[in-house]
Amino acid sequence: MYSAEKVRKFTEKVFVAIGCTLKDARLAADVLINADLNGVDSHGVARLAGYVRLYDHGRLNPVPQIKIIHETPSTATIDGDRGLGLVVAPYAMKVAMKKAKKVGSGWVSVQNSNHFGIAGYHASLALAEDMIGWAMTNAAPLVVPTFSREKLLGTNPIAIGIPAGEQPAFLADFATTAVAYGKMEILQRKGLKAPIGWVQDAEGAPTDNANAVKEGGGLLPLGGDREHGSHKGYGLGAAVDILSGVLSGANFGPWVPPFATAGFHGVAEEQVGKGTGHFLGAMRIDGFRDKLEFKAHMDKWIERFRSAPAVDGEQVQIPGDQERRFKAERLIHGLPLNEKVVESLQELGERFKIKVPKKGA
Amino acid sequence: MYSAEKVRKFTEKVFVAIGCTLKDARLAADVLINADLNGVDSHGVARLAGYVRLYDHGRLNPVPQIKIIHETPSTATIDGDRGLGLVVAPYAMKVAMKKAKKVGSGWVSVQNSNHFGIAGYHASLALAEDMIGWAMTNAAPLVVPTFSREKLLGTNPIAIGIPAGEQPAFLADFATTAVAYGKMEILQRKGLKAPIGWVQDAEGAPTDNANAVKEGGGLLPLGGDREHGSHKGYGLGAAVDILSGVLSGANFGPWVPPFATAGFHGVAEEQVGKGTGHFLGAMRIDGFRDKLEFKAHMDKWIERFRSAPAVDGEQVQIPGDQERRFKAERLIHGLPLNEKVVESLQELGERFKIKVPKKGA
Repeated sequence: MYSAEKVRKFTEKVFVAIGCTLKDARLAADVLINADLNGVDSHGVARLAGYVRLYDHGRLNPVPQIKIIHETPSTATIDGDRGLGLVVAPYAMKVAMKKAKKVGSGWVSVQNSNHFGIAGYHASLALAEDMIGWAMTNAAPLVVPTFSREKLLGTNPIAIGIPAGEQPAFLADFATTAVAYGKMEILQRKGLKAPIGWVQDAEGAPTDNANAVKEGGGLLPLGGDREHGSHKGYGLGAAVDILSGVLSGANFGPWVPPFATAGFHGVAEEQVGKGTGHFLGAMRIDGFRDKLEFKAHMDKWIERFRSAPAVDGEQVQIPGDQERRFKAERLIHGLPLNEKVVESLQELGERFKIKVPKKGA
Repeated sequence: MYSAEKVRKFTEKVFVAIGCTLKDARLAADVLINADLNGVDSHGVARLAGYVRLYDHGRLNPVPQIKIIHETPSTATIDGDRGLGLVVAPYAMKVAMKKAKKVGSGWVSVQNSNHFGIAGYHASLALAEDMIGWAMTNAAPLVVPTFSREKLLGTNPIAIGIPAGEQPAFLADFATTAVAYGKMEILQRKGLKAPIGWVQDAEGAPTDNANAVKEGGGLLPLGGDREHGSHKGYGLGAAVDILSGVLSGANFGPWVPPFATAGFHGVAEEQVGKGTGHFLGAMRIDGFRDKLEFKAHMDKWIERFRSAPAVDGEQVQIPGDQERRFKAERLIHGLPLNEKVVESLQELGERFKIKVPKKGA
């Protein structure tokens, strides 16, 4: 186990080393460390070297001039100026919340950004202000629409955060695919097969080959196949792509540039917009209903669902419960970084002359 | 085949017969006939007798005083006064669009309503105004959250309509379950088994019993089981329930009253809010970006997806394509109403002394 606070400090220093301001470095590190604390290991410091590679490839501006390029009282489009999505998305969320404060809701589409980490982080920013928060992003193509043999969509996650009263907040945060690509990578490392319903092969047939996505196949949309509603997962992922990419003027569909770690496809030669796109929103609870009444009903909702009779050995969970359990444990016991991630941090430490946190420290 | 226009006239007369104004009757009939035209037979005139039963049970006010009970410039909550959801939802959508015209976006939560028909109808109202339309509703509990043995959610559909330029609009409209309950009813009528991944039995085990929902089991969320992402479908259906029910002050979760046709559960004794809830939204395209630029990019998106290489014998579809194909054909050839539906129309015709359309007419 590694101390989350020491890994956080290390991460901040790496972002400063590539030219970020201390403020931006702290924010970017906070997004990554929160992913690790929440148990979303694939989106935490495991990706730090990837962000540095984005910088090395000239795709990341460490000191972006983020600006609003179009707006109405409740909507805006933001140009992220090739900044870290980890910094651009919270900026956009704050714009959405400011608009929500004034007119009830705020919706911000973002162009010219990069990978923004976990969607749930950005959606959650709204909770403390008694707002419902939304966050989505498009991503490089790994996913096949229903009946397609070609990968045209990213894993395009959606997060929705909803405040409660005595109960912790509701926070759903999920890729619009059957599984996140990180789960395929785990199977690849272990040499295991994938369950049917996660991927298809290059001809579009079901397969248990965990390497299928690298071999011309694709991740399946949520639902898996047509009979089980894959057209719904496809429709949802497509809507995320359009709101994030087409609405903002970013790239969309197969043109979305890869995050630096996705080594098996490069940046498309044609660009139909600028960088990666996001879509963020905030709605004031009291734009609809008395805040306290709402919170009392949310508590009732949560308690009712949590107490439902469960399948043997399981329990009904509220979206966000799993992340909270991880966080409670990891704040005490630290982060279980795997060997490859530690190696990548050591390389960064050597390159930038930053001391790497030690195990158990 | 039955002439859509004659069935429409009949439907209008039935709504007038239970006391609706001609204007409301026309609107309600338009929603139902559009479902039939679009091939969503389960949500068309097949449900007309159900709306009349709602009226017979005193749950439907044919002349509702629909009103805004809370608002900000971009948000509102509407009390549907126990009106037809078929009428209340378009009213709410118009409020959302009016707000969008003024401040860029409009979001309306609705309490005290009833079943609103197909979500896509309401979302589509935004398209002609160059807005993106959203429509959701909660519904009586048929669906089990991941690991739950108890049904706590409705099939809670989401529709998102997005305008394009030369291409027809993008319109995703889907229940947040593996399949709509209507598909189970078809299997029941034919005495067929269900594919694994659609339903579970009373103990929470996978089953192919098409009657499982009636026998203590439940419909599975989109994704099917935990391994294939059912927690995502559950999270999505839950968010729809909260936005429609908790945010508006309607009933939510297991307390949502059944649509009159769902005979195997009654209205819950405890009511935690008023009636059924909906959530509707509209966002002006030019609140984010030049309209013509957006439409040109939407056309590019649609053409790119439509032309992707497909699995043998199939083609990649754009959300909305299937409904458009049905509509083109049925406007010419008529509606293929099944025997049971025709019987239910005949009963209504006898009761209200209205001439029922004849086959082939």
